[in-house]
Amino acid sequence: MAQSSPQRDRSPAPDATAEFKRRLDLAAAETETLLGELLGPEPAAGERMRPARLLEAMRYSTLGGGKRFRPFLVVETAALFQVPRTRALMTAAALELIHCYSLIHDDLPAMDNDDLRRGRPTAHKAYDEATAILAGDGLLTFAFDVLSRPEAHPDPAVRIELVSALARNSGLGGMAGGQMLDLAAEGRFGGESKPLGLHDVKLLQAMKTGALLRFGCMSGAILGSADAEQRRALDRYGSAIGESFQIADDLLDIAGDAATVGKATGKDTAANKATVITALGVDGAKRKLTAVVAEAEGAVAIFGADAAVLQAAARFVADRRS
Amino acid sequence: MAQSSPQRDRSPAPDATAEFKRRLDLAAAETETLLGELLGPEPAAGERMRPARLLEAMRYSTLGGGKRFRPFLVVETAALFQVPRTRALMTAAALELIHCYSLIHDDLPAMDNDDLRRGRPTAHKAYDEATAILAGDGLLTFAFDVLSRPEAHPDPAVRIELVSALARNSGLGGMAGGQMLDLAAEGRFGGESKPLGLHDVKLLQAMKTGALLRFGCMSGAILGSADAEQRRALDRYGSAIGESFQIADDLLDIAGDAATVGKATGKDTAANKATVITALGVDGAKRKLTAVVAEAEGAVAIFGADAAVLQAAARFVADRRS
Repeated sequence: MAQSSPQRDRSPAPDATAEFKRRLDLAAAETETLLGELLGPEPAAGERMRPARLLEAMRYSTLGGGKRFRPFLVVETAALFQVPRTRALMTAAALELIHCYSLIHDDLPAMDNDDLRRGRPTAHKAYDEATAILAGDGLLTFAFDVLSRPEAHPDPAVRIELVSALARNSGLGGMAGGQMLDLAAEGRFGGESKPLGLHDVKLLQAMKTGALLRFGCMSGAILGSADAEQRRALDRYGSAIGESFQIADDLLDIAGDAATVGKATGKDTAANKATVITALGVDGAKRKLTAVVAEAEGAVAIFGADAAVLQAAARFVADRRS
Repeated sequence: MAQSSPQRDRSPAPDATAEFKRRLDLAAAETETLLGELLGPEPAAGERMRPARLLEAMRYSTLGGGKRFRPFLVVETAALFQVPRTRALMTAAALELIHCYSLIHDDLPAMDNDDLRRGRPTAHKAYDEATAILAGDGLLTFAFDVLSRPEAHPDPAVRIELVSALARNSGLGGMAGGQMLDLAAEGRFGGESKPLGLHDVKLLQAMKTGALLRFGCMSGAILGSADAEQRRALDRYGSAIGESFQIADDLLDIAGDAATVGKATGKDTAANKATVITALGVDGAKRKLTAVVAEAEGAVAIFGADAAVLQAAARFVADRRS
C-alpha cells in the first residue's frame, strides 16, 4: 500500500508522525475509559434505571474499537487553547457517541445492511434489529446528556453552543441528511441510479462524513473561546480533513482488502455509490487528496508549532490503510 | 363510552372542562404553526442544506395530527410562572419532536410493526424503512437544536437544564429504556413472556410513557425558575399525569374500537403486553385511575385558581376516548 500512497514523495518528519500516533492512541484510551464510565450501570439523576440489555448493546457498539479519530480532533484542537484535557474529553465522548449511533443505524438491514463492523458482528446481528434501533437512539440522546454536564465546561453558554453545533452537524442538515442523500444517489427511492456530479458528491460527503469531523475541530474553538480568525482556521482545517477523509475512504474501498479494513470492500462501487472517484477517476482523486491535505496543513499554520500534530493528522488521514 | 368512564360520578365544573379544551386546542394550533416554521426548507446556520425527502418525511410525521397534549403541559405549567408564551412554545415543540420521533421508531417493522398511526399510514409505509429511521433520528436531533436556541430562553443555564432534563427523560434511563423493557416483557429476546408484577409494570410505564409527560410538567418549572416546593408539586403532578395517561390508554385498548382510536386495538392484549390491567384487572385499574387523577389534582392545588386548567387536564386524561 505504501507505494500507492499519494504522500510517498513527501517527507514529513518521522518525529511528527510518531508523536501524532502516540497522541491518537492516548486520546483513544482516554475516550474509551470515559465512555466506559459514562455508560455505567448506575442511573444518573433524573433517570429511573438503565435496562441491562439496552445498556449492554450501547456499550457493545461504543467500546472496544475504533481509532477514535474524532475524539482526537476535539482534544487536540482544544489543546491549542489550553483547554483542560478532562473537559475536552467530555465533548470528545459526546461526538464519539454520535458517530457510534450513526454506525449502528447505517448498518441496519433497511439501510446499508452490513453484518460486520470493525471485524465484529454489527449491533443488529449481535442483538436484534429492535435493540439496535433503540441502542442508536439511546446513544444519540446520551450525547446531548453528556454535553449538558458541567464537567464539559463550567460556562453554560459554551455548553449550549456545543449542543447547537453538534445538533446541526449531525441532523437533517448534517450527517443524517447526508446519509439520506447517499441512499437517494443509489436510486433507492425509485429514482435513477447514476453517478452524481462532483458538486453533489462533495455536498453529500461534506454532510455524511465531513460534518462530524468539522464539529470535532470547531468544538476545540468553542471550548477555547477562540477568536474569529482562529475559528475560521479550524473551520477550514475541519472541512479539509473531512474531504480528505472521504477521498481516502473511497480510494481505500477500491484498493483495500477485506482482511485489512475489517468490513466488506468494493461494496460502494457495487452499489454504484456516489464517490469522488466516479467523478474524477482514481488518479484525479489522488491528486485532489494531495491538494486537500496541503490545504488542511496550511489552514492551521497560524498556530505555529502547536499545530504540528494536527498537520501530521491530515497526512495520516490520507495515508491510512484502514 | 361515557357510561364506562371512571369519572362519571364526579361533576367537574363544565366551565373548567370547556376552558381546558379551548386551551388544549390553542396550544395544539400554536405548536403546529411553530413546528411547521422550524421544519421549513431553509437551512439554519451551520446546516448545509435540508434534503427534500428527509424533510418531507419529518414534516409528515410531525405535522397535521395529534392532540399535542405534551406541548399543552409545557405551555400551561410555564404559564403558572408568567413565562412568555412564545418562549414556552419552543420547549413545547422540542418535546413534541421527541414524541414524534418515538412514534416513528416504535412503529417500525422490527419494533411494534404498525401500519397505521392517527388514521394515516405510518412513516415507513408512507415512505420506506430507511427514510423512517432517518426521519426519527432527524427529529430526535432537531429537538436539541430547538432547545439550544435563544428563543427558548435568554439564559443559557436554563436552556442547558432543559437539554439535560429532556435527554434523561427520553433516553436510556427514560423513554427509550421503557420501550426496551416493554419489548423484553413481550418475550421478544428469548425470555418467557409472562405478565409483569405491578411494580415492574409501573416502572416500565413511568419510563416509556411517563417520562416525557413528566418532562412536559417539569419544563414549566425550569422555564419559570420555580422554587423547590413548586418543582416538587409539578414533579408529582407530572408523575400522576403519566400514570393516569397509561392506565387510561390500557383501559382504552380493551374497550376502544379501531374506528375511534385510529389504530389497531386489542393489540396490547394479543401481544401479551404488560399493563396495569393484567396486574389489577379492569375494575382495579379503574379505581387506581380515579385515585391517581385525584393525586394529580391535589399536587397542583398550591397554585390555587391558576391550576384549574391543569386539574381539568388530569380529568381529561382519564376520560379521553382516543
